[in-house]
Amino acid sequence: MQPALEALPLSIRCARDYAAHARSRLDAQAWDYFDDHAGSGLTRRANRRAWDRVSLVPRVLRAVAHVDTRMQLLGRNQPSPLLVAPMALQRLAHPDGELGSALAAASQGAGFVASMQSSVPLQQIAAAVRNDEGRGPLWFQLCLLQDRAATLAIVRQAEAAGYEALVLTVDATIRAPRPLVLPQGVQPVHLPAGAAFHPAPGWDDVAWLQSASSLPVLLKGVLHPADAAQCARMGLAGLVVSNHGGRVLDGAVATAQALPRIVEAAGGRLPVLVDGGIAQGTDVAKALALGARAVLLGRPVIHGLAAAGAAGAAHVLRLIRDQLRLAMAQCGAAELAELTPELLFPAFP
Amino acid sequence: MQPALEALPLSIRCARDYAAHARSRLDAQAWDYFDDHAGSGLTRRANRRAWDRVSLVPRVLRAVAHVDTRMQLLGRNQPSPLLVAPMALQRLAHPDGELGSALAAASQGAGFVASMQSSVPLQQIAAAVRNDEGRGPLWFQLCLLQDRAATLAIVRQAEAAGYEALVLTVDATIRAPRPLVLPQGVQPVHLPAGAAFHPAPGWDDVAWLQSASSLPVLLKGVLHPADAAQCARMGLAGLVVSNHGGRVLDGAVATAQALPRIVEAAGGRLPVLVDGGIAQGTDVAKALALGARAVLLGRPVIHGLAAAGAAGAAHVLRLIRDQLRLAMAQCGAAELAELTPELLFPAFP
Amino acid sequence: MQPALEALPLSIRCARDYAAHARSRLDAQAWDYFDDHAGSGLTRRANRRAWDRVSLVPRVLRAVAHVDTRMQLLGRNQPSPLLVAPMALQRLAHPDGELGSALAAASQGAGFVASMQSSVPLQQIAAAVRNDEGRGPLWFQLCLLQDRAATLAIVRQAEAAGYEALVLTVDATIRAPRPLVLPQGVQPVHLPAGAAFHPAPGWDDVAWLQSASSLPVLLKGVLHPADAAQCARMGLAGLVVSNHGGRVLDGAVATAQALPRIVEAAGGRLPVLVDGGIAQGTDVAKALALGARAVLLGRPVIHGLAAAGAAGAAHVLRLIRDQLRLAMAQCGAAELAELTPELLFPAFP
Amino acid sequence: MQPALEALPLSIRCARDYAAHARSRLDAQAWDYFDDHAGSGLTRRANRRAWDRVSLVPRVLRAVAHVDTRMQLLGRNQPSPLLVAPMALQRLAHPDGELGSALAAASQGAGFVASMQSSVPLQQIAAAVRNDEGRGPLWFQLCLLQDRAATLAIVRQAEAAGYEALVLTVDATIRAPRPLVLPQGVQPVHLPAGAAFHPAPGWDDVAWLQSASSLPVLLKGVLHPADAAQCARMGLAGLVVSNHGGRVLDGAVATAQALPRIVEAAGGRLPVLVDGGIAQGTDVAKALALGARAVLLGRPVIHGLAAAGAAGAAHVLRLIRDQLRLAMAQCGAAELAELTPELLFPAFP
Repeated sequence: MQPALEALPLSIRCARDYAAHARSRLDAQAWDYFDDHAGSGLTRRANRRAWDRVSLVPRVLRAVAHVDTRMQLLGRNQPSPLLVAPMALQRLAHPDGELGSALAAASQGAGFVASMQSSVPLQQIAAAVRNDEGRGPLWFQLCLLQDRAATLAIVRQAEAAGYEALVLTVDATIRAPRPLVLPQGVQPVHLPAGAAFHPAPGWDDVAWLQSASSLPVLLKGVLHPADAAQCARMGLAGLVVSNHGGRVLDGAVATAQALPRIVEAAGGRLPVLVDGGIAQGTDVAKALALGARAVLLGRPVIHGLAAAGAAGAAHVLRLIRDQLRLAMAQCGAAELAELTPELLFPAFP
Repeated sequence: MQPALEALPLSIRCARDYAAHARSRLDAQAWDYFDDHAGSGLTRRANRRAWDRVSLVPRVLRAVAHVDTRMQLLGRNQPSPLLVAPMALQRLAHPDGELGSALAAASQGAGFVASMQSSVPLQQIAAAVRNDEGRGPLWFQLCLLQDRAATLAIVRQAEAAGYEALVLTVDATIRAPRPLVLPQGVQPVHLPAGAAFHPAPGWDDVAWLQSASSLPVLLKGVLHPADAAQCARMGLAGLVVSNHGGRVLDGAVATAQALPRIVEAAGGRLPVLVDGGIAQGTDVAKALALGARAVLLGRPVIHGLAAAGAAGAAHVLRLIRDQLRLAMAQCGAAELAELTPELLFPAFP
Repeated sequence: MQPALEALPLSIRCARDYAAHARSRLDAQAWDYFDDHAGSGLTRRANRRAWDRVSLVPRVLRAVAHVDTRMQLLGRNQPSPLLVAPMALQRLAHPDGELGSALAAASQGAGFVASMQSSVPLQQIAAAVRNDEGRGPLWFQLCLLQDRAATLAIVRQAEAAGYEALVLTVDATIRAPRPLVLPQGVQPVHLPAGAAFHPAPGWDDVAWLQSASSLPVLLKGVLHPADAAQCARMGLAGLVVSNHGGRVLDGAVATAQALPRIVEAAGGRLPVLVDGGIAQGTDVAKALALGARAVLLGRPVIHGLAAAGAAGAAHVLRLIRDQLRLAMAQCGAAELAELTPELLFPAFP
Repeated sequence: MQPALEALPLSIRCARDYAAHARSRLDAQAWDYFDDHAGSGLTRRANRRAWDRVSLVPRVLRAVAHVDTRMQLLGRNQPSPLLVAPMALQRLAHPDGELGSALAAASQGAGFVASMQSSVPLQQIAAAVRNDEGRGPLWFQLCLLQDRAATLAIVRQAEAAGYEALVLTVDATIRAPRPLVLPQGVQPVHLPAGAAFHPAPGWDDVAWLQSASSLPVLLKGVLHPADAAQCARMGLAGLVVSNHGGRVLDGAVATAQALPRIVEAAGGRLPVLVDGGIAQGTDVAKALALGARAVLLGRPVIHGLAAAGAAGAAHVLRLIRDQLRLAMAQCGAAELAELTPELLFPAFP
């Protein structure tokens, strides 16, 4: 099965324009599910505002004839610093679901992080993109289940299917439940019936996962510098600065505000990724200038997927990547490594 | 007499949703009475904004299987750091009045501070909740009357009825009068006819109250660090950082801004409580991280009471307590004592 | 001639409520004349916002039984720190014009600064209030005319009529003209026909005025600390921090922001007054805590005058004075001198 | 050909009032072309806000009888520090196009920077204003073409036509394309068919231009202090702090924020000009007080041109110049050199 290409909406100027199209295509429940935020939406708004408050101070005349967005991540060359964030139940957004967004990512050289709550089998996703030369990283996100054997069973599937890293989400195990009536045929296909998330995982569980799998392990949901330091001490492969897009703890610090302190605490010992409110290529440039190695994109990709399937998701990624390339050129940065704090105002940190 | 349980409004997601229900249930005068603010509402808005401007920087993977909101206050174990703030004439909000909110508090393990201007006899309130094992503190709030004997008469009633502490309000004796036509059957049942508040109490009056009653005395309405230091010097049992919810001095500093300086001045010599704009569990977590030992909730409880009587008030308290528990778990704090300044951004102070 | 007392508008809670009444009573030209601001209104809005951004940190339990707003100004005891700012052509607002506002001021113990562009003869104003025991200062405002003899002629009239000080406005000689069609019978009664303002006065002109009149001279329109220092060196009797209510230079610093630096530069060598955006008693308390000795009130008094003549203007002054007294009591300040920087947040300066 | 004078719109109080008139006169495409901004308009809004956040602290009594806006720029006396910014295709705004705005500039003593993408021949522009005694600088703006010979051919035309300096734009070579259907008869008359901009110019290209032309060279589009220092080292004749009016990199720092750091880096070795959001004379005063030597005006001039041709553009320039003169007088600055950082709040830098 390969998604059929759909027509793109007219008059899209930037990735953010897709939100309105998605809203008009989705039923209210599906829209609310992806658009959700905790409490009064304080953190969600803060995420966005924090990127806007960082300004770029471009360099000129650096003779940047070619912009190169390639980078190293976990010892592998990647075409770009963009990844699709792990998001559950993408078939709520579009019948192609995760298959659509994974193909979109591969086509744009972006990475893809499959969610443990995927509504498409993870093997099917991997099979569709694994052999694509130009694709980015293919990672698998999981939360720890109460039952280590059940956790391991899923990890083994991910390993066998060719996923290259495990992204362990650590900020969402305790969360206010939100009622959701799944439409016929949409469900988390890998979650065992009756499976329960580990309500209170600890660093020892992380160590267990590191020892139980040969895959590198990244932690997603780190906001405190002390936790970043612990990640480094434990030899984790990376961490994602994230507040779950403002969906978990309303009042949590904006990721753009947390990022510099995390980068400092990590001290170059492991790559720092970030998500939360990133909606355009200039946000990516700012994130990298603040010290992030790569970024994860959530809602923008869902908006593209909902509006026009794989083609829409790919268009969103291309718009963001193109704007990143444009921003790099405008900042005189031929390579991602040239996106440094000296391009920022106010001065970093 | 026990309040009849009422149906809860549908589609409540958080405590703040009760405000609209209360507004539609109350007549304009009653709504205005509880919703009142001094002047242009500057301080009331500032209270709310100041909590929003404090962000939480959660810790992860601390293996928090159980969250414990128990704490010590005035040498007694309390189930939670929540108390219902003293509010006058609650029968304006609902026929059950203070009885409703006191039962709500007891049912949720929150403390209750009965107002000297209660519209239900304080003995009746105390009788209804005194023997509840799971209840929080039962305190009595008073302003000094011009006549010390009259003041003492009320204090003696509170002592006899089993109230465990006196909360002396010191920020509202001088206040612009607001016309209020009390409906039939609603009145301050303990204020002697013709009683006048002491227009200009001093620290010597506080000392007198300390000596006149065996109950511990807390001061409510402290905003200046120098006054907090004086409270400590006089051996007061506690103080409440409060600007009376923005009802007294428009332009007074927001309580979340005053709190850290008060905590510093108190230096651990007496517990610091706070109220003003606290409307959700994350606000409580922030207050405690800023150094408060407990918080008082005013308007949210009235909104619940007005909307659905004791059941509504209890629901409000449960929503706030649940969100506090959630926030604690999300911050990796198993106990209240783990809510510390290192969880805050911007860094404290 | 004495103004007839008019009925006050109903449902006034604070001085600011008079603005709407004034607007409905005045024709558009008159409203625009008094409500005018330079350019885009940046400074006018900044004035207001700057007072709002200063918070009060009240003291409690200071046993303030009586609040005393008396103060010394230019060696004379004054009932309050309020003065009516000099405003031209007040008969545009109400037939009683300056006579109405002067009587209002005298009745409330506020000072009155008659404008050189008064639409009522200055002798008539002075005669009506001069012998009022309870009145505040009676000052005369002037701009320097190109012709010193003409200037002196007006000064001599003010001296003879009993005015006690000269307020020399120094920020409005160069101003974009604004077309104004004066209604029949409304005109600046003391400005000689064909008189021109001195287009470029200097400090030597101030020295000349000091030597030419036995009255003390204050400067109005000072915003720069260096100019305040010069005022002190020249032995001026006082200065008014003012940006002309945002009517002259759009983009000028807000007076509440300029005030602390001016107070510091004045170093106690001369009294510092302030105007600009002061609309309620708490603003007055903030101004005094920031170091001002007294405040001038402009538009609020015009609003009262326009809405209900002398009675309206008096009501405005009483509301502001009452709120000042309330704020003092709430801050534990029995006297104006107790309004000090330690009552402010953020900390001063 | 000389433009016919058109009637000015009624009820214009300041230059900004022309925007509405322009909008009603232009078709949507033309309006959008000039009003365009990159991305979400973040930088465009930031430009404007940054000027508003700088306040002026005027001096008084400096006996400023005459205000003199003359200044030296590139060794030539100029009547004012205002220049019309280089803008392409001005015949989209009005049939007179660049001829109208150049004549407007000359009539007001403002400089004119002709765009390489002028829709009127540069010789015709120069011929119309070159011999005007009272005019300001006449400069020619260019981007480097891929073909140095083609670039040089245009430079030679500019030299021959009497242009006095070259303004090399360095921030817009890499830009997201925007579709534009040119109306009949409107086109960039000097751009060779098929000419391509140099996609990645470097400092060596600047050096080449310096050596290839006898005209002084200024750089436009500098935001980073390090680039300003490089300009100084290369002996450039000047630089323009600019983010292209927010049209190029959305998220670029506001020019008023970048300016002080650039001035510091330039260290007086070359004049610093600035544009971006300047819309009134007080903005010009602020820019000069922050250290700029002159300012460029873009959209305001186009709005005047669109609304009323040369007369409208001249009116805009006159309003801004008059407000500058007024602001200078109100600040006690008889000459531009007296607009210094000590007139600013917050204190500079």
